[in-house]
Amino acid sequence: MRHGILKALIFAVAQSVLCVEIVHAADPLPSWNDGAAKKAIVEFVSKVTKEGGPEFVPSAERIATFDNDGTLWAEQPMYFQLLFALDRVKALAPQHPEWKDKELFASLLKGDVKGALAGGEPAIFKIVMATHASMTTEEFEQLVTDWVATAKHPVTKRPYTEMVYQPMLEVLAYLNANGFKTFIVSGGGVEFMRPWVQKTYGIPPERVIGSSAKLRFDLRDGTPMLMKLPELNFFDDQAGKPVAIQTYIGRRPIAAFGNSDGDLQMLQWTCGGVGARFCMYVHHTDAAREWAYDRQSHVGQLDKGLGEAKTKGWTVVDIKQDWKTVFAFENP
Amino acid sequence: MRHGILKALIFAVAQSVLCVEIVHAADPLPSWNDGAAKKAIVEFVSKVTKEGGPEFVPSAERIATFDNDGTLWAEQPMYFQLLFALDRVKALAPQHPEWKDKELFASLLKGDVKGALAGGEPAIFKIVMATHASMTTEEFEQLVTDWVATAKHPVTKRPYTEMVYQPMLEVLAYLNANGFKTFIVSGGGVEFMRPWVQKTYGIPPERVIGSSAKLRFDLRDGTPMLMKLPELNFFDDQAGKPVAIQTYIGRRPIAAFGNSDGDLQMLQWTCGGVGARFCMYVHHTDAAREWAYDRQSHVGQLDKGLGEAKTKGWTVVDIKQDWKTVFAFENP
Repeated sequence: MRHGILKALIFAVAQSVLCVEIVHAADPLPSWNDGAAKKAIVEFVSKVTKEGGPEFVPSAERIATFDNDGTLWAEQPMYFQLLFALDRVKALAPQHPEWKDKELFASLLKGDVKGALAGGEPAIFKIVMATHASMTTEEFEQLVTDWVATAKHPVTKRPYTEMVYQPMLEVLAYLNANGFKTFIVSGGGVEFMRPWVQKTYGIPPERVIGSSAKLRFDLRDGTPMLMKLPELNFFDDQAGKPVAIQTYIGRRPIAAFGNSDGDLQMLQWTCGGVGARFCMYVHHTDAAREWAYDRQSHVGQLDKGLGEAKTKGWTVVDIKQDWKTVFAFENP
Repeated sequence: MRHGILKALIFAVAQSVLCVEIVHAADPLPSWNDGAAKKAIVEFVSKVTKEGGPEFVPSAERIATFDNDGTLWAEQPMYFQLLFALDRVKALAPQHPEWKDKELFASLLKGDVKGALAGGEPAIFKIVMATHASMTTEEFEQLVTDWVATAKHPVTKRPYTEMVYQPMLEVLAYLNANGFKTFIVSGGGVEFMRPWVQKTYGIPPERVIGSSAKLRFDLRDGTPMLMKLPELNFFDDQAGKPVAIQTYIGRRPIAAFGNSDGDLQMLQWTCGGVGARFCMYVHHTDAAREWAYDRQSHVGQLDKGLGEAKTKGWTVVDIKQDWKTVFAFENP
């Protein structure tokens, strides 16, 4: 009996030593080609986690923030949340006969999305408010959950939650394994993201920051509920991102990941701090496996940020060169 | 050598078995007298952490929210943040000669705090805006850090961070040890709380929700900074509390702790959910060791909430009866 315990213990110890070795030897970023971007990530993580090293950062302060659209998942041919809103317009149309004669909605219902969206941000705002408000937060959560489970991307015909960048999932897992606290800081709606982020990215809802509508607390027949109002509370883009980071997290990140000029201030704020910092732009350069766009794009425009990344020595990921795999479904 | 390893391993195993037993046997709430309140807390934690049990809640969903003033630390003779603001008025007076002839500030500088505060919330708002804004978030953080390190409570002459309720620190530690995520949801300013909550409560800054001023992101000679503006962003009180919980955390708590009518909606929202829930009011009943106040108080009024707690069967802590120790410094 005692001998059996000894054998079991020695086996357990040997196994854990073996496991540690395997973990150390494994490449934490297998979907990344060897190159400057991958090297920069690994070197940054190594130095801030090296206890006693000159650039060591305690785990509690290892805050990393990620944009979502175009950084963690795709954003073409248009923001996925807008595609959700367009599906909601179709679903709600029978309850809104007046939409047939109301411009914007009339165009959408005729299938002329391009015409409807020619109105730019005010048009998008109208569509979002008509489809995202005047219901409880729990009703909205259910709508998003159902949509994410069934809707398919118009080009790849894949569920939207498969349109996530495999190399970025690896970065998230790598940071989490190294004691970082990873947050999403997105211009997208916070209530739109929270129902699926845990399963898709391993990020819990309380680590998601986004744009939001005003909410109203109501007691309906004694039952408390939160109503989503058709009124913007906060637009989490551009200068709004560092503001939201301070308001929600209260610590300056040491690493930030974005892909557009909407992320520029978040990167400025992150890399403007003292000590080791890491700022990364994902540059969409691969028209074959994904989409290629930057300075002239209406979605995820990256113009000013590209210049600033060069000046400040931020890491710019060239998807075509740096990513072995873009989407996991490429390698069935 | 091999025999040495065996002995070491057996010792380690024996020791860990012993530790587990000690942990199980120890009272997690030693500053609580045995009674209904303590029993209710322990029973709630036991049932939601019992794997396979009918009321089990996965760790990720064990959200617990705590009011701060009057729930985690004291709030008499007035909110501590207001005492900080009054100290700032004195410190800033030389730079504001006009205050001598400006009512409210003139009264404060003459030492007539009661007269100045007779103006109620608008007066408090003016004092806070004059002392909390028009500086960067980092400058403000430094002011708070310095004040907390040096200022003393006017009655006990203790540092404010010693004016915390020992029984509530035990509840926080007990919940954290049982896989809960504990958050502060306070009417106090978020930037006022974050500099000291980690050390005082073991709660990291990103788990603090509070009232906030608007912030503006600026580049000053290329250096990014966040300016605190003299404008309210969000008032985290009453119906604002469930709104903030949804906006910041995105999950409904399963446990909530408060002490005033300002916490009522947070408790309604928490205990209005499906499944095991726990709502607790701290009732200030001990004029000897602390302060006794409730329905008629200007600070931390608890009137409507007391009635609702009774109707709904929420736990009401009677400080005089339920707490063996109020402040740790009572037991030197």
